[in-house]
Amino acid sequence: MKALKIFSPATVANVSCGFDVLGFCLDAIGDEMVIRTTEKKGIHLTKIEGCELPFEADKNVAGVSALALIEDADPDFGFEIEIYKKIKPGSGIGSSSASAAGSVFAINELLGKPYSKTELTRFAMKGEVLASQSEHADNVAPAIFGGFTLVKSVNPLEVLQLPTPKDLYAVIIHPQIEIKTAEARAILPKDIRLKDAITQWSNVGSLVHALHTNNYNLLSKSLTDVIVEPHRSKLIPHFEKVRETALLHGALGCGISGSGPSIFSLCHGKEVAQQVAMQIKYVYSTTGIPFEIYTSEINTKGIKII
Amino acid sequence: MKALKIFSPATVANVSCGFDVLGFCLDAIGDEMVIRTTEKKGIHLTKIEGCELPFEADKNVAGVSALALIEDADPDFGFEIEIYKKIKPGSGIGSSSASAAGSVFAINELLGKPYSKTELTRFAMKGEVLASQSEHADNVAPAIFGGFTLVKSVNPLEVLQLPTPKDLYAVIIHPQIEIKTAEARAILPKDIRLKDAITQWSNVGSLVHALHTNNYNLLSKSLTDVIVEPHRSKLIPHFEKVRETALLHGALGCGISGSGPSIFSLCHGKEVAQQVAMQIKYVYSTTGIPFEIYTSEINTKGIKII
Repeated sequence: MKALKIFSPATVANVSCGFDVLGFCLDAIGDEMVIRTTEKKGIHLTKIEGCELPFEADKNVAGVSALALIEDADPDFGFEIEIYKKIKPGSGIGSSSASAAGSVFAINELLGKPYSKTELTRFAMKGEVLASQSEHADNVAPAIFGGFTLVKSVNPLEVLQLPTPKDLYAVIIHPQIEIKTAEARAILPKDIRLKDAITQWSNVGSLVHALHTNNYNLLSKSLTDVIVEPHRSKLIPHFEKVRETALLHGALGCGISGSGPSIFSLCHGKEVAQQVAMQIKYVYSTTGIPFEIYTSEINTKGIKII
Repeated sequence: MKALKIFSPATVANVSCGFDVLGFCLDAIGDEMVIRTTEKKGIHLTKIEGCELPFEADKNVAGVSALALIEDADPDFGFEIEIYKKIKPGSGIGSSSASAAGSVFAINELLGKPYSKTELTRFAMKGEVLASQSEHADNVAPAIFGGFTLVKSVNPLEVLQLPTPKDLYAVIIHPQIEIKTAEARAILPKDIRLKDAITQWSNVGSLVHALHTNNYNLLSKSLTDVIVEPHRSKLIPHFEKVRETALLHGALGCGISGSGPSIFSLCHGKEVAQQVAMQIKYVYSTTGIPFEIYTSEINTKGIKII
């Protein structure tokens, strides 16, 4: 019997301009999981702490992605999964992705790494379908690859690993209200103005260029969203107040993390990030809405064995 | 009296996925211009060869951009401009941009380079307004900066100079029919599907990443346009045949240059480009439509003194 314990990080998808394609990986918050081989074939969830989640493998995102992997690998033994959930479901920082990606990452390690990161992302996406009824990779890709990722296409799956500038920190505030990914998708228009789309793809191109050239000023100017944020920000209480505070205190940019309600700020340097976190905390404390706040370096490694 | 002669190159705007923001600079075709200082203040067009264009400075794109510059610089002398037009107006490879950018580049040199490339682009855009009734920089920017450029925003103007991978060649076919930029704009829908916009910005991000990483395979996969090409390609006779031929013979991608009718193919290596050019020439010869064809290295310098 072999076993390992992993840290499966939270992630920020969309990153303002890059709806459905960009994402980055956090370090300060993530789930822990223990995966061990068992004689009994199949996937067996044996322990789930921190959250009420189904134990049936085909109803649990970590189970579904793991099942997709073993269906392909067909090992003559099985796996037990223990989940120590730290990322709250519906928080908008890739809770389901952490589970979906964590199980396949660990099983791949235990099998001797037969699969590439892109193949693991493909398996993990099966778990995402269970969670949000849509096949997307913008959270699982940064969890598995680390750093910033761009999902060039889903079918066929192609993930680009983008460079991460030094000293880049994220501040995440999670107001404790729930927004379901499916609901946050339903609020979006099917059609958008070509004019706005041009602004958006100019910003995506600029953001990729900024990451390659360590240009924090350009990164800052690229972190805008004229398409999704105007709709989704209405679902998040005091979003504008958080953004104003973040930018006033030196954040490079501030936007909705995934489908919300979490809000991310990107900051150059730990001190700026700590200052931004403190100020957001101060401002949000007056709203009466319970919240959690995290300051995290960008995690360039992704999921890791602990 | 000081004088200089310049080569002001043709350019390809849009580059498939990057409508209104991306562009690159050609080397094999461009206008020549002679600019000299005169005692008489103002801008004076003294010679125009190769094309019927107005001699009044305020009705000529090279004149309008030059006027914008001297209005700002306010020199106590003037400039004479001679234009030897090689790029046909309405060809879709930046004919007006070459004139607009050429005059301000040369005048800046004669004034001792007081202006940055971005400032020159801003003056040149005034000429573009005269030519196409819209303020855009996606042709003047690559003419002035060279290589690949991304116009991050027009107001305020911000141009990003992207890296150019080695051994990248373009093949341009110019079917001798005229499409006015204004007409080609009118054919575009005001609204597009969010789904298509996501594909497009994913490709813009991927293309920028490909340029930074010399990844020709990714460059190839990024050179698609699901938004503009489906509409504008209808205006270009035998567009699909040209594209099929280019891709069959090894081109990385093929799309409409600017608002057409010219079609560009990007190729890795001179031999591939020559083969692609030969095959397109062969195929287009059967259509009965007169055309010109050019094979050009990507010009990383932009406008130059000759």
